[in-house]
Amino acid sequence: MTKKGILAVVSGFSGAGKGTLMKELLQAHKDQYALSVSATTRQPRAGEEHGREYFFVTKEEFEQMIREDALIEYACYVGNYYGTPKSYVLEQMEAGRDVILEIEIQGALKVKERFPDTLLLFVTPPSAAELENRLKGRGTESSQVIRSRLKRAVEESEFMEKYDYILINDDLHACVREMHELIQVQHLRAGSNKEWIEKIKEELRSL
Amino acid sequence: MTKKGILAVVSGFSGAGKGTLMKELLQAHKDQYALSVSATTRQPRAGEEHGREYFFVTKEEFEQMIREDALIEYACYVGNYYGTPKSYVLEQMEAGRDVILEIEIQGALKVKERFPDTLLLFVTPPSAAELENRLKGRGTESSQVIRSRLKRAVEESEFMEKYDYILINDDLHACVREMHELIQVQHLRAGSNKEWIEKIKEELRSL
Repeated sequence: MTKKGILAVVSGFSGAGKGTLMKELLQAHKDQYALSVSATTRQPRAGEEHGREYFFVTKEEFEQMIREDALIEYACYVGNYYGTPKSYVLEQMEAGRDVILEIEIQGALKVKERFPDTLLLFVTPPSAAELENRLKGRGTESSQVIRSRLKRAVEESEFMEKYDYILINDDLHACVREMHELIQVQHLRAGSNKEWIEKIKEELRSL
Repeated sequence: MTKKGILAVVSGFSGAGKGTLMKELLQAHKDQYALSVSATTRQPRAGEEHGREYFFVTKEEFEQMIREDALIEYACYVGNYYGTPKSYVLEQMEAGRDVILEIEIQGALKVKERFPDTLLLFVTPPSAAELENRLKGRGTESSQVIRSRLKRAVEESEFMEKYDYILINDDLHACVREMHELIQVQHLRAGSNKEWIEKIKEELRSL
């Protein structure tokens, strides 16, 4: 079947455990996946590395990428640009790697509009109470920050139906396995295997 | 996530190994799957049992089922009716079992039209040459029957794109595993989990 990579976009509530989930997935299947790295105009924080957390670029460079249609999607938050460079994603997919994009909902929907074959995954804890527990349990956030994250979750939950699949992150390992299966079976989609189908049709006719 | 069963329709070339595949799948996951049994007006053959291979009914009984909209789909071949009784399928799905329907293409497309959530799977050998080998290898069919099966495969191949997923039956066990994964991940579809999504939205709002 198709050797070409799948583009999977992962979104979900802050506190749903997306980060850990994706780290585990990539560790377990190193050669299969590539994590897309975003470009941003914000300043690097301590410990962040160019090309690992983000590609740190200037406002001028970012705006040139916009003009050259070099971004799959981009958005502006609190005065900084964030976007997904197209070339890396397409290169990895051509090389047969499945590319995972962790972006927020508006970006995810834009990607789906532009590339309808994109797999949209929404990660959620098993319940709202559990989301609250996890946010509180971190112990690093003020109650005000927790309130604002929960408020944001209410807004984000309105878009869950627009995703293809919902992943409930209850047991981490089970969730990693489901995510892997979900992405891998997409290689069997009829729509992603038009060339293969044409080939067997041709072969059958010439028997 | 959703406890409700998935409806999966399996079609594919004669000689693709659908029968063995489904037998293995059902043996490996007895409690998860139910195989739909068709109703037919044709005479039972030696060894066939009412309710196992088919529900053998009279023409009058079958036509009454049509009038009562008791069939998901039906067709007429060589003067006999064949159809899928609705009640059994819906009961099994309500009970949380994934129902597998092995029917030909026209029936499969009708089911999808009527129940858009249906998962359409097309089973094929890895190549046309392999299909020919398998048909010949059976050693039970005349070369005329083999020719007519291959001719039918050419016609059927025109509809492969209309299926959701293509399953290449090269290694039986790998194919059974893929089929199982494919069906199971459908339980995570956002569209199949509207109630769950409404529930967590509600919970988030009331935090």
